[in-house]
Amino acid sequence: MSSFDLETYVLKCAKEAKQASDQLIMRTTEEKNIALAEMAELLWQERQKILDANKQDIKQAQLNGIPETRIDRLMIDEARIEGMIEGLHQLVALIDPVGEVIEQVTRPNGMKLEKVRVPFGVIGMVYESRPNVTVDAAGLAIKTGNAVVLRGGREALKTNQALVNALRLGLERANIPSTAIQLIERTERESVGILIRAKEWLDLVIPRGGAGLIQRVIEESLVPVIETGVGNCHLYVHEAANLKMAKEIAFNAKVQRPSVCNAIETLLVDQKIADDFLAQIVPLYREAEVEIRGCEKTNSIIEVEKVATEEDYAAEFLDLTIAVKVVKDLEEAIQHIHHYGTKHTEAIVTEDQQAAKQFLNRVDAAAVNHNVSTRFTDGFEYGLGAEIGISTQKLHARGPMGLQELTSYKYLVRGTGQIRE
Amino acid sequence: MSSFDLETYVLKCAKEAKQASDQLIMRTTEEKNIALAEMAELLWQERQKILDANKQDIKQAQLNGIPETRIDRLMIDEARIEGMIEGLHQLVALIDPVGEVIEQVTRPNGMKLEKVRVPFGVIGMVYESRPNVTVDAAGLAIKTGNAVVLRGGREALKTNQALVNALRLGLERANIPSTAIQLIERTERESVGILIRAKEWLDLVIPRGGAGLIQRVIEESLVPVIETGVGNCHLYVHEAANLKMAKEIAFNAKVQRPSVCNAIETLLVDQKIADDFLAQIVPLYREAEVEIRGCEKTNSIIEVEKVATEEDYAAEFLDLTIAVKVVKDLEEAIQHIHHYGTKHTEAIVTEDQQAAKQFLNRVDAAAVNHNVSTRFTDGFEYGLGAEIGISTQKLHARGPMGLQELTSYKYLVRGTGQIRE
Repeated sequence: MSSFDLETYVLKCAKEAKQASDQLIMRTTEEKNIALAEMAELLWQERQKILDANKQDIKQAQLNGIPETRIDRLMIDEARIEGMIEGLHQLVALIDPVGEVIEQVTRPNGMKLEKVRVPFGVIGMVYESRPNVTVDAAGLAIKTGNAVVLRGGREALKTNQALVNALRLGLERANIPSTAIQLIERTERESVGILIRAKEWLDLVIPRGGAGLIQRVIEESLVPVIETGVGNCHLYVHEAANLKMAKEIAFNAKVQRPSVCNAIETLLVDQKIADDFLAQIVPLYREAEVEIRGCEKTNSIIEVEKVATEEDYAAEFLDLTIAVKVVKDLEEAIQHIHHYGTKHTEAIVTEDQQAAKQFLNRVDAAAVNHNVSTRFTDGFEYGLGAEIGISTQKLHARGPMGLQELTSYKYLVRGTGQIRE
Repeated sequence: MSSFDLETYVLKCAKEAKQASDQLIMRTTEEKNIALAEMAELLWQERQKILDANKQDIKQAQLNGIPETRIDRLMIDEARIEGMIEGLHQLVALIDPVGEVIEQVTRPNGMKLEKVRVPFGVIGMVYESRPNVTVDAAGLAIKTGNAVVLRGGREALKTNQALVNALRLGLERANIPSTAIQLIERTERESVGILIRAKEWLDLVIPRGGAGLIQRVIEESLVPVIETGVGNCHLYVHEAANLKMAKEIAFNAKVQRPSVCNAIETLLVDQKIADDFLAQIVPLYREAEVEIRGCEKTNSIIEVEKVATEEDYAAEFLDLTIAVKVVKDLEEAIQHIHHYGTKHTEAIVTEDQQAAKQFLNRVDAAAVNHNVSTRFTDGFEYGLGAEIGISTQKLHARGPMGLQELTSYKYLVRGTGQIRE
């Protein structure tokens, strides 16, 4: 396919989504819920085709020498399809944010202003190998009256085709244009570039995946982007910490699931309690096979595997590695986080309310936690019901993004002939 | 100055702003209000220096052959300074959105979530010749606890220097770091490029000015942008319109102040009332020296100055020119607006509530008006008290942006040692 044809193809998908969004905007909550239920039903009916497609993808990935961890993310089985179906059913039960009147006022000249929640229109999703994102994103989009253009990873193409085929059959049964869910079936690198410059048809782009993908989307996109997911999260153990609590949180935040964005990557320890605290946490980390990269002071207290470098403080390890730094005080901890943090989740453990207040106030992150593990930054844990990603920027949405974050608003202004003097 | 030095200089300004924002975040509403009052006071004390600087800018602009309309935008006199001062005083009286608890919930595990309104941090403003933007933007930023980096137009440099000097003296008197207001004094084109890529220091960029400037900022920025101001606004006179009302609105929306973004550029007239309505509005437009560029049908009813082209429908004239198109029905009007609109303000005049409902629901714009002139899309008219611009995108803010739109939020999560199972 020539680059001209590729552009024509991608823009056609985007344009069809835009046209479908003009239909979607007129659907009631009930109609959208029926569509979600049909989508769930069709996933079940089509499960064998989906599993077969997934087997082909996995076979190809193995032939291509894709690492085992990525193949694991790609793999689906009947239980995972059931999980996707369950996710769609949960969406049905959630409150539809569209149509909510956020504010309402009558101005002195008699004109009535209503600030009303509306769908964005068309949302572009650019993501990597997890096929569940395909179903989650389509479901969240339909619930909020948005059309969606999906650009998943190359390895998952056949799986995504089978999933989207089922979802679109579901839309058709519910009398919603199947073009509201678009899958870009060309996985050349440039198809992403064309999509994220299609400002005429897309209203929002959400990248989900590694730091490289997200960076590329931010750099190239002409469509507004919500940056998601990179989490270089810190836990600061303050001098006035309850050390038993600090130990439990430090262990949980690193070890319970190290591959996710809300796990910690650096532990900051106040020098006044460093000897005592490191003596408690380090044996636990060692037992769990956590590799410790510590600063010189840490190394003088416990023997570390490696002395930490600038790169270690900046790294999102996403595995059983942790950087440890002994800091002079609260101020140094805050400055370290200002410098290395990615505005995701930052936590302090302390019994000193003044120190906690200063940390909560000054640390610039989507979530700032006091005496709570960083692992709770998550749509389900926050009670939002479902999430399309975790925003690490400050425009529009911050932290876990649920249904409300997939909407915009507009002003409806009603009058009786008012003109401006 | 070499390009290396230019980059060093711009980034130094941005970094200083970031450091100041860490101070600003800790100031109370009262402290910020005192700063605004001092800024106002200093503008008055320094007025002679400001006026002298402005005279120099104007003289230079005239030497450079800058058009009269742009020189008019650049010019300030004592009355305009009083207007700026009044604007700062009005900000003092407005409610500070920072610190507002937007939502609050205790989760089943006992952790307490608070969604709290916070400043963005550092806002970059890129604008053209109006010096009042300098004072408005600085005032709105300080009120909301944000630092600001101003990059005004080349022609206004001396004026902006004098204004910012006064504002910074005001900050100092109020014990707030004067580095919270930064003016980029290098007006090479590339200084904009460096600023809007300074993702490390800036949290938000707002461009204000012509379509070319806004387009450039969207294309080059790595910092999240709020797109503002380009308004190709339409008025649709439906078949069931009260024609007297339609005439008044059509005249007001075009003629009362044609140079602004919420004036209309195209009039869409339903074919069923086209003869009648055009016979009423055209003489009024002609009397006001409005140039009419009409479609063939319009031309067959009244003789137009020029037959409208695609370019005319796409143009934001910002002067006494209007495109007129006779449309078959509501659907054609909506499709025309879908195609040519810039998502600013769109209006319908009709007595038919069903038609109005469909127009309000389907037209995708920041403000959709029924029987009201488009000219009301404005922060003051909406009762927001002040505005930093009118957003025409859907991410974060839509329509007039007041104080609340200059804030983000974060989650404060307080617990008693909760860890994730």
